[in-house]
Amino acid sequence: MPSRLHGALERIDLAEKLASFDDAWNPRIVAELNGQEVRLVKLRGEFVWHSHADADELFLVLRGELEMHLRDRVVPLAAGDAFVVPRGVEHKPVAPTEAHVLLFEPAGTVNTGDASSERAGSLRRQDLDRT
Amino acid sequence: MPSRLHGALERIDLAEKLASFDDAWNPRIVAELNGQEVRLVKLRGEFVWHSHADADELFLVLRGELEMHLRDRVVPLAAGDAFVVPRGVEHKPVAPTEAHVLLFEPAGTVNTGDASSERAGSLRRQDLDRT
Repeated sequence: MPSRLHGALERIDLAEKLASFDDAWNPRIVAELNGQEVRLVKLRGEFVWHSHADADELFLVLRGELEMHLRDRVVPLAAGDAFVVPRGVEHKPVAPTEAHVLLFEPAGTVNTGDASSERAGSLRRQDLDRT
Repeated sequence: MPSRLHGALERIDLAEKLASFDDAWNPRIVAELNGQEVRLVKLRGEFVWHSHADADELFLVLRGELEMHLRDRVVPLAAGDAFVVPRGVEHKPVAPTEAHVLLFEPAGTVNTGDASSERAGSLRRQDLDRT
């Protein structure tokens, strides 16, 4: 029974997927479900302040450390921590070294949200290592 | 700016959440976003065959091993692996020892799907360790 959902019914080895690319701030879609996408991204350094008008966003740190800057505080996150940024809330992810992060958000969400930036990754399905 | 989303804008330490309960097959909701829920569950042994008519379901293995039984094959999963079961697809999760799993699925999804069973956990928000 072939599924039309990208990434469905197959083992998704997150470390393997992450090893298949190196560029930062350029999320790869590894699966989709219920109109949402699971993305993997490598973060290095500082992103731009932005918010998403219509999308809540989940960050799950798989490796490294991530500082989630909010307008009123900074939340330090480490591997094994998750964090949800509700729609409309300004945030700026900062990775002091390198962080590997799983994102969960609605399909089509632009990573820079309302901020126009050359940092907006050319989001693409991570099909490189599929046969 | 208080958020109405459960678990939003706070660090969610997955290991800490998992350490706060021990019963198997009883998912705890640790966050919600975009009408979806992030749940943590401990699996031990064999679950029931079931499917979800209207919900795709993501399994992300955090610890241990999980065998995802499908009608035509068994997919072995280990920590760091994710797996998406599309709506309508029969599946039976089996954990030979103990597995800790993050689930992502639409809010309100019953874990036994179409199978009636005493295994249907009394899904509840994981507020025990919040102050």
